[in-house]
Amino acid sequence: MSVVTLEKCRENIRKQLDNVVDFWLKYSLDRVHGGFFTCIGKDGKIYDELKYVWLQGRQVWMYCRLYRTMDRFHKPEILEAATVGGAFLRKFARVSSSSGQWKCAFCLTRDGKALKVQRTIFSECFYIMAMDELSRLTVEENFPKQLFSEQMMEQLIYWVQVDPSGLGRPQLPGEVPINSLSVPMMLMCLVQQLTEGRGQEVAQKYKELGNWCVEQILQHIQRAGTAILENVSVDGSELPGCQGRLQNPGHALEAGWFLMLYGAQSGDKEIHRTAIRNFVELPYQYGWDKEHGGLFYFLDVDGHCPTQLEWSMKLWWPHCEALIAFLMAYSHTRKPELLEIFSEVYQYTFSHFPDAENGEWFGYLTQEGKVALDFKGGPFKGFFHVPRCLYMCERILDDLLENKD
Amino acid sequence: MSVVTLEKCRENIRKQLDNVVDFWLKYSLDRVHGGFFTCIGKDGKIYDELKYVWLQGRQVWMYCRLYRTMDRFHKPEILEAATVGGAFLRKFARVSSSSGQWKCAFCLTRDGKALKVQRTIFSECFYIMAMDELSRLTVEENFPKQLFSEQMMEQLIYWVQVDPSGLGRPQLPGEVPINSLSVPMMLMCLVQQLTEGRGQEVAQKYKELGNWCVEQILQHIQRAGTAILENVSVDGSELPGCQGRLQNPGHALEAGWFLMLYGAQSGDKEIHRTAIRNFVELPYQYGWDKEHGGLFYFLDVDGHCPTQLEWSMKLWWPHCEALIAFLMAYSHTRKPELLEIFSEVYQYTFSHFPDAENGEWFGYLTQEGKVALDFKGGPFKGFFHVPRCLYMCERILDDLLENKD
Repeated sequence: MSVVTLEKCRENIRKQLDNVVDFWLKYSLDRVHGGFFTCIGKDGKIYDELKYVWLQGRQVWMYCRLYRTMDRFHKPEILEAATVGGAFLRKFARVSSSSGQWKCAFCLTRDGKALKVQRTIFSECFYIMAMDELSRLTVEENFPKQLFSEQMMEQLIYWVQVDPSGLGRPQLPGEVPINSLSVPMMLMCLVQQLTEGRGQEVAQKYKELGNWCVEQILQHIQRAGTAILENVSVDGSELPGCQGRLQNPGHALEAGWFLMLYGAQSGDKEIHRTAIRNFVELPYQYGWDKEHGGLFYFLDVDGHCPTQLEWSMKLWWPHCEALIAFLMAYSHTRKPELLEIFSEVYQYTFSHFPDAENGEWFGYLTQEGKVALDFKGGPFKGFFHVPRCLYMCERILDDLLENKD
Repeated sequence: MSVVTLEKCRENIRKQLDNVVDFWLKYSLDRVHGGFFTCIGKDGKIYDELKYVWLQGRQVWMYCRLYRTMDRFHKPEILEAATVGGAFLRKFARVSSSSGQWKCAFCLTRDGKALKVQRTIFSECFYIMAMDELSRLTVEENFPKQLFSEQMMEQLIYWVQVDPSGLGRPQLPGEVPINSLSVPMMLMCLVQQLTEGRGQEVAQKYKELGNWCVEQILQHIQRAGTAILENVSVDGSELPGCQGRLQNPGHALEAGWFLMLYGAQSGDKEIHRTAIRNFVELPYQYGWDKEHGGLFYFLDVDGHCPTQLEWSMKLWWPHCEALIAFLMAYSHTRKPELLEIFSEVYQYTFSHFPDAENGEWFGYLTQEGKVALDFKGGPFKGFFHVPRCLYMCERILDDLLENKD
């Protein structure tokens, strides 16, 4: 890719971001009960009114981030959407659990009644992301919102590092504790979120946790550095069976750019190299479908067929993570082979996922690249991976094009 | 289909059943720890050692049934497999829950340690099926095993009809109780299992429950008889959103032949007609893929895209249920149009699912009919739907061919 094509690429990404922001502003906000509809059909029609807390939190975070850091999105309607979503979350997301600790619901009715609580930490994670980013918008409300996120964060750390019983899952004799990639990744993302621009004291407070996350993430490098495995034992060895052999290339790529950011910020060059080699280049090598293009959703490191029915489908979000990871890796190293792969992922992504007719992106393709599920939002697809990817890529491209070699 | 082709069809089905029984006898039994391996690759290789209680129970049931009712399977190795599986289940399946009630685990380690407990009734259902059928094999052990299944059955009825809190799911303010088709279907299947050939006293004991199940199943006929919906409210009205609009054609077809049996046994002709019209013909009409053939896994009654990633895939078990349902409906009515549809389902099924090379059936195809997951057994595919279908069809065909018009 030349500078000229990088310019074109930025132009396209900018247009896509505008389009996606417009789509969600137009269809998603619930002005009656607050919060967001996220089950949105291909043409913008709401086909279900349930409110998924992961997606509510992510959407608040994304609006705040756009409002706060990009001039063209510093608009009243973005601020309004962010605050309406934030108020809904603050009012309804938290439920007290049987242990007396606060949990966040996974799913709420349109008017905010809890419908489902997961026995994991992820609803809480996205709640914290939303509350922290929201606390950065306005000075007068800063303190309480920041407090909300910090209190929930304390509890999260307790569940992950001390005692998970408050999550509500009974301990069973056959269970062994596992290190699932999603947990240290999410916590690392939160550490970056909570400390960004907050000064030395906050950075110091979360420093140890950040280091712990890195250590836990690196445990997923297995088989003499030739594979990233999604689940490992807590002492970093391979687990038996399907669970132990599972690979999720999109997830590894996402961990890759989290680690790259950490390496760049902390000045740890070894981590930075490991991030690119093991978490960016490697998952692309084993995760890319040489026949039809695109990234597989799940793989088994020994080549068995995964038991996940959707293993061979091409989902939008691993492609979003791959775009960020390769563009960031290129911008940090200027190695042309990284830009080449970015270009390949870019071609596949933009020729398959965006819907030229009704806007936004399809999320779920067959292995062959046909649209398999045609909605724009669903229980797990909201206003997050697509705009975050476009936002990150636009910023990296701005940086690259301002600092041409 | 003529008598000649029905003869050929029976011949094929008989061969297929022999093949499938051989496959599982060869690869599945764990002679070290007892129970069955069910994660079996396309060529018979065990790719995971976890033992799923649904599948353990179903496999015990199937072996007992074959041993007890089909001469050619009245063999020591079938009896051995059934009893080894039954002993494993009896020893390890039950775990005491926090409420002090007995639950069955969903998943066990190879040596029988509980790994996961679902907050539903299905592990218990398949445990009961296995224990009841096992109690029919040998006279001397009859009493205790029959007792096991009856005790668990009492608890199941309590969870379903009185208080579900023992299942371990906290009640949340947004939840409304729902009538999910799977629950009355499973209970009805258990009523038929527990009462079969047990005499008047047992029949009387479960009569009311059987009637309740029928009533609950019939509530799923919605939209003026034009649709079977998977989830309805407890008073039989349509629920909002995706959950309320969900259709699972294979499930409706399975309910269809359960209801047909009930109608035939009780002499209730109206139920029998409803079973065929609403639960057999109708799900085929909306569930059959006119473009590529085969039954969709999930549909939305209003034509929205389902949110289940696998909605358009062709799974083996709905086709098994369709074969039983249409052949039974034909044998009960002798209407040629029912045999025509049986023939269509038969053609699709036998040209897509059986693996001529390594035996047994593939379970998961793409919408277009390509094998998407190539294993023969997995967490949800065991020795059950395929052999039950072949067993039922062989018996119906025996009956049809002995009583030619």
